[in-house]
Amino acid sequence: MAHITLKNEQLPGIVGLLDYRPETAKPLNELAEILLRGPSTLTRAERELIASSVSHWNQCHFCHSAHGAAAAAHLKADIALLDDIKAELKQTKVSPKLRALLNIAKQVQQGGRQVTEAVVNTAREQGATDLEIHDTVLIAAAFCMYNRYVDGLGTWAPEPKEAYVETGKMLATVGYVNFRPPH
Amino acid sequence: MAHITLKNEQLPGIVGLLDYRPETAKPLNELAEILLRGPSTLTRAERELIASSVSHWNQCHFCHSAHGAAAAAHLKADIALLDDIKAELKQTKVSPKLRALLNIAKQVQQGGRQVTEAVVNTAREQGATDLEIHDTVLIAAAFCMYNRYVDGLGTWAPEPKEAYVETGKMLATVGYVNFRPPH
Repeated sequence: MAHITLKNEQLPGIVGLLDYRPETAKPLNELAEILLRGPSTLTRAERELIASSVSHWNQCHFCHSAHGAAAAAHLKADIALLDDIKAELKQTKVSPKLRALLNIAKQVQQGGRQVTEAVVNTAREQGATDLEIHDTVLIAAAFCMYNRYVDGLGTWAPEPKEAYVETGKMLATVGYVNFRPPH
Repeated sequence: MAHITLKNEQLPGIVGLLDYRPETAKPLNELAEILLRGPSTLTRAERELIASSVSHWNQCHFCHSAHGAAAAAHLKADIALLDDIKAELKQTKVSPKLRALLNIAKQVQQGGRQVTEAVVNTAREQGATDLEIHDTVLIAAAFCMYNRYVDGLGTWAPEPKEAYVETGKMLATVGYVNFRPPH
């Protein structure tokens, strides 16, 4: 049960929290919208893969599943993609640049001071720009926030990955600012 | 040196990053404004003490110093408050409720799944409301983002605590959305 009174069974994970405190929901949704769906040389699928991977490393089941499902929707892939995100994308075809950016994201997840010149240089050698490196760091950092928000308040979320298919489609098409939970 | 090209020497810590990417700066500033200065039954000083403490636990020198300096400005206290924040506020008079909320913040800093019923119940016994618990978790989570953003991109920040006095005063009076770095 969540640590505070929420409409969490109808509104799982972060959705119940966004409903509980609309004032903070506004910038939280806007930040996700810009980072994950705004203009970028990284595809929306690539950015959702970073978000879902960081959430998995933070053991946040809701965010891992919802953002992995959004990546699957963008890629028109099966929801089994969630298992491959947990397995560091062994089966999924991703660019060497994205793999290098995921290594930066992993260090950010461990702590800001863990990020080394070496991982940044490797990303640059794979063609990553300053802005792509910036956005990768901020996506990873932002999910260290969203994940702690969702789990720190003890919210409930559905277990099976199939439960996230509709949410993923909605996040991929409608986005974050205009998101309404599926029935 | 920062990992990407910033005007970081004139604009230390997060300030150079907010200048680099105005699109993400907007929701980042709005979130800080609502959480740290918006209407709340927690004082602005109490909320800055949570922000500065979490930043210290994350070893983020810039955020620890800037938000500790903002707390000092609100409390009309000496900048030596920064040392006492590092020492878990042994010298500073704070309420049992704030100490209990700081214990929640410490667990959030360690990870969302680290937050126990016990620390939440203790905060409640000390008079904390659902909204105060919610905001404490979100402040702690948000600083796990800001701290990783600032250090993950390798930004430079001044070392001595005296360098943060003017910034602290400006954050305490002007706030986050309208913040301009002092000369």
